[in-house]
Amino acid sequence: MSATSQTSQQQPAAVARVAADPGHTAQRERRDRLRALLGAAGVDVLLITDLINVRYLSGFTGSNGALIVAASGDDRISTDSRYITQVAEQAPDLTAIIARDCAGALIDHLIGSGARIGFETHVVTVQTHQRLLPKLSGAETLVAVQPLVEDLRMVKDDYEVEQIRTACQAGDLALADIIAAGVLVPGRTERQVARALEWAMFERGAEAISFETIVATGANSAIPHHRPTDAVLGSGDLLKIDFGAVVEGYHSDMTRTFVLESVRPWQRDIYEIVAAAQLAGGKALEPGVEVVEVDAAARSIIDEAGFGEYYLHGLGHGVGLQVHEAPSIGAFSTGTLPCGAAVTVEPGVYLPGRGGVRIEDTLVVRDGEPELLTTTDKTFTVI
Amino acid sequence: MSATSQTSQQQPAAVARVAADPGHTAQRERRDRLRALLGAAGVDVLLITDLINVRYLSGFTGSNGALIVAASGDDRISTDSRYITQVAEQAPDLTAIIARDCAGALIDHLIGSGARIGFETHVVTVQTHQRLLPKLSGAETLVAVQPLVEDLRMVKDDYEVEQIRTACQAGDLALADIIAAGVLVPGRTERQVARALEWAMFERGAEAISFETIVATGANSAIPHHRPTDAVLGSGDLLKIDFGAVVEGYHSDMTRTFVLESVRPWQRDIYEIVAAAQLAGGKALEPGVEVVEVDAAARSIIDEAGFGEYYLHGLGHGVGLQVHEAPSIGAFSTGTLPCGAAVTVEPGVYLPGRGGVRIEDTLVVRDGEPELLTTTDKTFTVI
Repeated sequence: MSATSQTSQQQPAAVARVAADPGHTAQRERRDRLRALLGAAGVDVLLITDLINVRYLSGFTGSNGALIVAASGDDRISTDSRYITQVAEQAPDLTAIIARDCAGALIDHLIGSGARIGFETHVVTVQTHQRLLPKLSGAETLVAVQPLVEDLRMVKDDYEVEQIRTACQAGDLALADIIAAGVLVPGRTERQVARALEWAMFERGAEAISFETIVATGANSAIPHHRPTDAVLGSGDLLKIDFGAVVEGYHSDMTRTFVLESVRPWQRDIYEIVAAAQLAGGKALEPGVEVVEVDAAARSIIDEAGFGEYYLHGLGHGVGLQVHEAPSIGAFSTGTLPCGAAVTVEPGVYLPGRGGVRIEDTLVVRDGEPELLTTTDKTFTVI
Repeated sequence: MSATSQTSQQQPAAVARVAADPGHTAQRERRDRLRALLGAAGVDVLLITDLINVRYLSGFTGSNGALIVAASGDDRISTDSRYITQVAEQAPDLTAIIARDCAGALIDHLIGSGARIGFETHVVTVQTHQRLLPKLSGAETLVAVQPLVEDLRMVKDDYEVEQIRTACQAGDLALADIIAAGVLVPGRTERQVARALEWAMFERGAEAISFETIVATGANSAIPHHRPTDAVLGSGDLLKIDFGAVVEGYHSDMTRTFVLESVRPWQRDIYEIVAAAQLAGGKALEPGVEVVEVDAAARSIIDEAGFGEYYLHGLGHGVGLQVHEAPSIGAFSTGTLPCGAAVTVEPGVYLPGRGGVRIEDTLVVRDGEPELLTTTDKTFTVI
């Protein structure tokens, strides 16, 4: 793919990474914040089996693992023999129990303690629950607990925001790279554009892509989650690109929509409506606001313009160690936004068979104005 | 990364793809095979909520969806409004129910039928189970069912084997590309090698990578699941590369270990032991064999050579729509190998602080000799 070679020849600088905290202070502090919630949840220990939550609380990134956080402070991690070295490096402050059945080994460790052991009901399967229950031979009990770690994860600390900011920068730079390299022109395929953009993100410091890159041209842009095909970019097409980078496990998420070479009035019209909605949604972000109000701030503009039926998804979602995490911002969502939440704002209008526009930023909720992390220009642009 | 530019200049041909069956015969046949198992499982309908299983049985690849397969033949799929177009294209033979809560909507659809509704206990969380139960207002019951679809998925049909073969070819070609381009030389970093290899897989027709590419040099090669770092390849290093491509959703998985420039006797020794074990494991693959016997065929060679304590993981695993799926082939695994199973054979010896060797192929169990899908040479090679 020649466009990529051109990009490479610019010898771009990769975004700078912030080194992970060698003392694991952040992970210890997160476990302490969780520990403080255990009493109110009615448990002495929380068994964490979601791997993202395990990573958040310990730093361990292996594909098999579990963790207990105890009111007593006697936290333990478990993983299997493939990860003996890795767990010692990534979670040096935690004693590791090496076993294939990590959750089972941690329950075994607690036998005799009489602990009320909380488990994550949204993570543990019915099968695992049935497997763990018979282990409780004594006074221990398994207690269903609603998501606690996901709530903690909503509020990003400085280290986390810095990773997300760096991931967003990698995305911004990569998109600018492929535009400068002339990739977004009629004749290319969606797949070629996606591949070039992903390569540029790696060159700009991404360790992975956030999700399967969406490149949708012409009528395909009316499909909200279109997968890139061999469809060829055509003059006059709306071109919608939704993509993100991962840095130190943290994700970015951004959508931009362009028009190729020549514009029709309906394209400009829906672009301006979506842009106004996106601006209003961003302005509505403030600590304590109900998420449905944020959704409504953007949705009402599209509704009033008469395009409500062509905007069927939510306004946004949290971004962090997962590209989709709490909070959800939609017409049916509940709750309020905490200060420090990293979220997307991404309204769209999709006209079936014709084309669609989505504009999306990643922002952090702050006292006062939110902080914009995806900085690529949003002015209506004909390329 | 200059090596990649060199690779690009070779203008390699991508592997040819086999078009998906437009009539969805395969998906219908798979649902019929599942339907035939419902009676023995004690249910009238199976609710499928695992997205990979949904894809296998319907062709639908969206990120939210569920499916019911009914003894009556009245199968339904559910997804949310983002995927209205996609589900119609990918699963044209199934009636779709559009809803945010797909499993809930399918249960609602069954209310009044009096059906015994099986659910996948290894997939459904305790929380989802608790949410679905109150919906059963009448004669319907929710019945715990052990994995059925995963068992069907073990036996690959011709279309599936062709996709895995194509994915394996993309991996073989990509590794040859980066060797030809001189990427595997002292001075490169693990990350650079991983990136070049991934790029080459895309150039050779991969739609995605199977898993995070493992490139481990020198002492890092002793870490079974090492993540690529900025560690620099050195002369005399063992260099272990474990990687795979995805084609039409199907994965490949291969590991090769090289030595850079100069060899020490212990490196050759452990290589030859692992190679003998890998050969023996592959030869043990035949329909009906106990998986523990396959594991033992390879493991006994490493044990007898005195290196058993340095080989702590299983011998292999199934490969298909997931890079790790049934069957598991290890010392603690159970069951036998069916004809048509696609599996890996991947013994290793890892000497902490010094280096390790793993050799892995993907093969299909056949009557007679297994079919080797990863064809890169396994002769001890000094690069």
